Amino acid sequence: MKYHVQVFVSLKPSILDPQGRTVERALSHLGHENVSGVRVGKLVEMVMEGERAAVEAQARALAETVLSNPVMESFRVEVRELAGA
Amino acid sequence: MKYHVQVFVSLKPSILDPQGRTVERALSHLGHENVSGVRVGKLVEMVMEGERAAVEAQARALAETVLSNPVMESFRVEVRELAGA
Repeated sequence: MKYHVQVFVSLKPSILDPQGRTVERALSHLGHENVSGVRVGKLVEMVMEGERAAVEAQARALAETVLSNPVMESFRVEVRELAGA
Repeated sequence: MKYHVQVFVSLKPSILDPQGRTVERALSHLGHENVSGVRVGKLVEMVMEGERAAVEAQARALAETVLSNPVMESFRVEVRELAGA
């Protein structure tokens, strides 16, 4: 079975996010005063083949060891069955 | 009312994704042969204040004009009420 896996990687709240700050300032200059707390992270998408439980475990392991830096970043994994695969 | 807004920005499927390719090759070298189609995109999170419909419209407009490049990227917006705000 094939699965569409999404790994959302964001900086931990305690870590300064210069990219997010820059976007926030730009939005403020553009008049978007009602926007705050802008954080910019990564979204890694991939197709993984295998049995669901094994794919979920493997995706979590990849997120933890390859796709994110556990010191500064936190991650969330979503696994969806790929239709027609 | 305050809303937690997430904007997921990904390269359009027709666009070559060198970053995704690099990650895919690295995973293959690490023995993860069941992984394919790796794509790396952006996840922009922010807090927006206002009335729901207005926030949704504003978030879409921001995603289209500031947070993504419509020529190469597609985006998806998720708006969730911020608990206790």
